[in-house]
Amino acid sequence: MIAGIELGGTKTVVAIGDNDGSLGEQFRFPTTTPGETLGQAVEWVLDQGLIDSLGIAAFGPVGINREATSYGKMLPTPKEGWSDFDLLALLSKELPDAPIILETDVNAAVLAEVTMGAATGCSNVAYITIGTGIGGGLIVDGNILHGSLHSEFGHLNVPRHPDDDFAGLCPYHSTCLEGLASGPAISKRWGTPGHKLPADHPAWDMEAWYLAQGTLSLLAIASPSRVIIGGGASQAEGFHDKVEAHLRRLSAGYFSTLEENQPYVVPPSLEQDAGIQGALLLASRASIAEG
Amino acid sequence: MIAGIELGGTKTVVAIGDNDGSLGEQFRFPTTTPGETLGQAVEWVLDQGLIDSLGIAAFGPVGINREATSYGKMLPTPKEGWSDFDLLALLSKELPDAPIILETDVNAAVLAEVTMGAATGCSNVAYITIGTGIGGGLIVDGNILHGSLHSEFGHLNVPRHPDDDFAGLCPYHSTCLEGLASGPAISKRWGTPGHKLPADHPAWDMEAWYLAQGTLSLLAIASPSRVIIGGGASQAEGFHDKVEAHLRRLSAGYFSTLEENQPYVVPPSLEQDAGIQGALLLASRASIAEG
Repeated sequence: MIAGIELGGTKTVVAIGDNDGSLGEQFRFPTTTPGETLGQAVEWVLDQGLIDSLGIAAFGPVGINREATSYGKMLPTPKEGWSDFDLLALLSKELPDAPIILETDVNAAVLAEVTMGAATGCSNVAYITIGTGIGGGLIVDGNILHGSLHSEFGHLNVPRHPDDDFAGLCPYHSTCLEGLASGPAISKRWGTPGHKLPADHPAWDMEAWYLAQGTLSLLAIASPSRVIIGGGASQAEGFHDKVEAHLRRLSAGYFSTLEENQPYVVPPSLEQDAGIQGALLLASRASIAEG
Repeated sequence: MIAGIELGGTKTVVAIGDNDGSLGEQFRFPTTTPGETLGQAVEWVLDQGLIDSLGIAAFGPVGINREATSYGKMLPTPKEGWSDFDLLALLSKELPDAPIILETDVNAAVLAEVTMGAATGCSNVAYITIGTGIGGGLIVDGNILHGSLHSEFGHLNVPRHPDDDFAGLCPYHSTCLEGLASGPAISKRWGTPGHKLPADHPAWDMEAWYLAQGTLSLLAIASPSRVIIGGGASQAEGFHDKVEAHLRRLSAGYFSTLEENQPYVVPPSLEQDAGIQGALLLASRASIAEG
């Protein structure tokens, strides 16, 4: 038996599963303080029995680079009480015999989608999730990309849509992708939350244009063969087709990768299970690595 | 003995070296047709004696993804006579006993800089080169990033500088990074080639701003811990400091990677030898892989 924890900004999911990564029972509860949240997760896991390994998919920014001193810790975050909290230290103490692998939630989600979801069998895939913020994860040449920290697609600078005069709302950069295209940005620009805007509202064409700009940056830097876009704001009817159309117009035939892969922009197929499923796949890898 | 070929758009360099990748004699000549150019390179190599392996650093776009049918071939390129030419087929025929590794010229250059140059020991590094076009190469978690094709930093879309009304000159995207910041873009915008513009000319501040935007995109996607900027237009006095200053202003303290790595933007240290040195390092890897 293995276990996974999906640590989200507002809710936490903990699950057990088989050593092959298949998903068993789950338990969901609100994320509160780090000690209380991880305590609840560990208690539930221990109640299920002995586990071989643990995978964690955490909201970011979080230290996932094993060579850095920040490995295992939450990095400075506006979420109160979480900055610098050492996730790995607490979990290793509570579960001393289980190897533990930590990733960002979006890295775990893209791992799950590549293993058993919308990008099965692809070696180069990006996952963009649009919610309160905009997050990203990348599989490059078959491996999860870490770099010196991890991807932060939300803070990509993008050109401004010619019809957009919204000031943007990223506290750091105003008009980065997150500042112009996150759920709160849609809500503030149009005065109505995204889920109340009809599918033919101009908000969606503009939103798709911004996501196409972000996807174009991914193509120019990491050259994925597929891009998955998920999260609340991606669920408007026909949204992925709109992004695909803008992307093809903006790229103007330059990227052969786009010609060879149609459709290029797809929705996730594991939906809300992707994060916890990814956490279990990480646990499965940890278990295999330990023999 | 091993050999390397740096196949450039205008000139070709061929060199021999030791199995550890150290650089020996070189021969330089103009790039003409593919058959003639590679023929000259092979003839020179054969005159030096028997080689164990060959590394090639080629201008792009070129197929470097071993899983793709385009592997080893030039992709559609405006350079006459080169589109679809199968480099690897010709070289394997002429040098049937030597394992051959093919990379883009910028990937080879970043490999050399990471192995023995401006980013020695770094696991996550990007190299941007500003010349007739803008090229890029990436080392991610210690490996050269391929993706489904390879990086094309030049075709990143970037915000427009507020004081810039230049139309851009990329035939595909007008105002991508290459369209706004390549050597010919500087020349056309200011009516004077870059090498004739003094270091205090406003051209350099604008050029640095655009490169800072491109670097910011790299940070948000691949999270390198250092970015090397080379090529003609980067040689203006104080240019790297200007990019660094813009980058820090634009990123507004968000990326902890920037705080931990100062300076973040550096010039290459191998200069014009980086490409051929990288080709030899590739040959050295091929030689080791074959035992």
